Amino acid sequence: MSLTVNHVFNDLKAFLKDHQVTMNKTMRVQHSHDESYHKTSLPDVVVFPNSADEVSKIVKVASEHHTPIIPYGLGTSLEGHVIPYDHGITIDFSKMNKVLEVREKDFLVRVQPGITRSQLNKELKKYGLFFSVDPGADATLGGMAATNASGTTSVKYGVMRDQVHDLEVILSDGQMIHTGNLAQKSSSGYHLNSLFVGSEGTLGCITELTLKVYGIPEHIVAARASFTSIDDAVEAVVSILQAGVPIARVELVDEPSMKQANLFSDTNYKEKPTLFLEFHGNEPGLNHDVEFTKEIVADHLCEEIYFEEDNAARNRLWEARHNLAYAYIHGNPGKKLMVTDVCVPISELAGAIKHAREKVNELDLHGGILGHVGDGNYHVLLMLNTNDAEEVKKAEQLNQQIVDYALQRDGTCTGEHGVGIGKMKYQQKEHGQALQVMENIKSALDSKRIFNPNKLIHQKGRSV
Amino acid sequence: MSLTVNHVFNDLKAFLKDHQVTMNKTMRVQHSHDESYHKTSLPDVVVFPNSADEVSKIVKVASEHHTPIIPYGLGTSLEGHVIPYDHGITIDFSKMNKVLEVREKDFLVRVQPGITRSQLNKELKKYGLFFSVDPGADATLGGMAATNASGTTSVKYGVMRDQVHDLEVILSDGQMIHTGNLAQKSSSGYHLNSLFVGSEGTLGCITELTLKVYGIPEHIVAARASFTSIDDAVEAVVSILQAGVPIARVELVDEPSMKQANLFSDTNYKEKPTLFLEFHGNEPGLNHDVEFTKEIVADHLCEEIYFEEDNAARNRLWEARHNLAYAYIHGNPGKKLMVTDVCVPISELAGAIKHAREKVNELDLHGGILGHVGDGNYHVLLMLNTNDAEEVKKAEQLNQQIVDYALQRDGTCTGEHGVGIGKMKYQQKEHGQALQVMENIKSALDSKRIFNPNKLIHQKGRSV
Repeated sequence: MSLTVNHVFNDLKAFLKDHQVTMNKTMRVQHSHDESYHKTSLPDVVVFPNSADEVSKIVKVASEHHTPIIPYGLGTSLEGHVIPYDHGITIDFSKMNKVLEVREKDFLVRVQPGITRSQLNKELKKYGLFFSVDPGADATLGGMAATNASGTTSVKYGVMRDQVHDLEVILSDGQMIHTGNLAQKSSSGYHLNSLFVGSEGTLGCITELTLKVYGIPEHIVAARASFTSIDDAVEAVVSILQAGVPIARVELVDEPSMKQANLFSDTNYKEKPTLFLEFHGNEPGLNHDVEFTKEIVADHLCEEIYFEEDNAARNRLWEARHNLAYAYIHGNPGKKLMVTDVCVPISELAGAIKHAREKVNELDLHGGILGHVGDGNYHVLLMLNTNDAEEVKKAEQLNQQIVDYALQRDGTCTGEHGVGIGKMKYQQKEHGQALQVMENIKSALDSKRIFNPNKLIHQKGRSV
Repeated sequence: MSLTVNHVFNDLKAFLKDHQVTMNKTMRVQHSHDESYHKTSLPDVVVFPNSADEVSKIVKVASEHHTPIIPYGLGTSLEGHVIPYDHGITIDFSKMNKVLEVREKDFLVRVQPGITRSQLNKELKKYGLFFSVDPGADATLGGMAATNASGTTSVKYGVMRDQVHDLEVILSDGQMIHTGNLAQKSSSGYHLNSLFVGSEGTLGCITELTLKVYGIPEHIVAARASFTSIDDAVEAVVSILQAGVPIARVELVDEPSMKQANLFSDTNYKEKPTLFLEFHGNEPGLNHDVEFTKEIVADHLCEEIYFEEDNAARNRLWEARHNLAYAYIHGNPGKKLMVTDVCVPISELAGAIKHAREKVNELDLHGGILGHVGDGNYHVLLMLNTNDAEEVKKAEQLNQQIVDYALQRDGTCTGEHGVGIGKMKYQQKEHGQALQVMENIKSALDSKRIFNPNKLIHQKGRSV
């Protein structure tokens, strides 16, 4: 134990209870990884604050000792965001997981960062409300804001950034700010909400969030549409969007992924390239949308469209979709998950997915393709033997080719998983001179670089 | 003419044609004001660039001489944003007003900043598309992005910030960046789009915008609903929103404003507190929404709801609404417009409007109340004799009281008009410590403070 770590630990003990601060090896190992293939690294100390005031004090200790701070929700990130490569203090927000206020008339909810999306939705259901953003993992809201997460419903309701009305944030000097307000819109000052959402813990610690919520729709219909080829399925999605159908969810699951889903979720869905669809609205309007969609998918050689009539079947469908990454992990013991995450303009989606499949085959890799295709965002899921250097190299080559294809078409290297450590190498190519602006903002707000250092943005003169 | 101005002029002449750079008094006077009551001030030089490259060179000249740059669209701002209180160079973007690309399949359009919203919509109509944001003025898209403008449709389609996918921006050193990409969503790096939207020309010059557009809805229905009291009208809006009706527009116009509208627009609408409504969607769904809305307004003592069946009548309705500020200006020759612009959580809207009406009466001022009440955003319009110090003082007192009321309820001092010079005095109260973060960002990106100086954010040690 280094002298600095010792000092940090003692300074933290001065205001945290014994069970709130630990250097226990098991606990450090638990906070050394996320759900991805990225290599692990241990924090020096793990803390469990109960309040923003405690977080502020922790940040002050870190600032004084120039020690890194890594905010940690549940560790479900996929690009190494929470792995403490520079060690330091991991702040685990699991004790700050409360719903603080439901303002049902304003369609707003105020929560602590450690609450998960399913905990939040359980509470909101009592009010006839729901929170829309649903990444595959049952992630924490703080983590979802940090990476600007999205999911199956963003084609209709938007991404995490669209839901955030206000954040309470602890800055690098321990001061607390609010980034927004509770009004529906504002033109007052720089839009700090959107800057802090997606900043991946590199600018401050989120200690509270005020989020937009929605009334549970009057009527919901879900469906599975099976296609002969993945190309037909993708082109059907493009046609649905261009026809202006206000679809609430439209997810692509390819044949290998349907097999994994059936195995893991004990379903017996047709093992063909499939679209999972959902429509929200009033009954007559929704029926009109459904009929129109049926015509469109028929034009794209849909083999069968099956409607999930009751609530239980509908929930089973979306659970199977949400659990797909876990289905792959479960089906490939000992291997680690690597997921590509590009997003392209809709007109480029069919070409992009075709290109990705060709590259997977060329490199003799095995994986599934799925994604939130209504947004132009798709994933290739690969299960890697991280001890096989050749396989890892091929997977990284694939990622590079997929990213290059997307960037050449004005897309992005990450639609929803974030940069973390895994996408830093593409930032210069994607952002060009704008990366320097981001660097200047980082320096202006965290000059000592204590917040999640060497993630998202490189420190000058350092290579990671 | 000062020596510096002379140098600046000569340096600009080195690469701009004669008609692109002027110190002509008439032209300077034209660029000395906006549409508000704020006092005027002359720029030293006005330039008319044709390209981003020319803008970059202009910024370099300004940077070299520490001369202010004021980006200028059409001068329709309402808080003095474009008034050059520190003189310098006004960049008039009227020559950069082209649609550069319509990507109809991606629902995106790329435009230059000097194009107005009506010019853009005329072009988009050929493709069956429309751009949603519609402030009262036929403002330029560059100006609308700079203030994060909104209008009658934001309750359904969102504000300017929600439409911006990418900006081309010239920074204070003359370098060009892109703030985004063409994908539907992205988690790659800090969200510069949202930082530059609403930055009011204080961080850089926008030279190109890529914006989200929408398919013209299959079916549109507009209506006017008249109420006995303004309170009933406001409460009807709150009920419509809380019932989850996906209304596309819901605007409040009070009795005095209905009178002004009839006079100016040659309409004969009932002169009662009125809601202007619009519904977008497929026919069966929309009919269902209309019937539901009829029931809700009836519950709130609606006297009459009148549906505008044909296109011409519908356009007349919205034109009358959009022209309301001009109706007041036209009806009060010699006077200047002052408009309050707070936005409050929906649950606070009825109370806020009631409070505003009481204060108007108490101060013996005369004005109308109207606004985008579906967002919780409303305006008190006052026509001021700016030579009457007492009247101006009373109007400022009213503004202060209305802002205080909104801030006490976690609202904002400006829902859509921006800060400019008029709302700077409320920034500390609204943002607290977060104002320092904004200040740090300003310093990091424009250390010489050449971009629209002393707007939105004070320079330390200066009072304005």
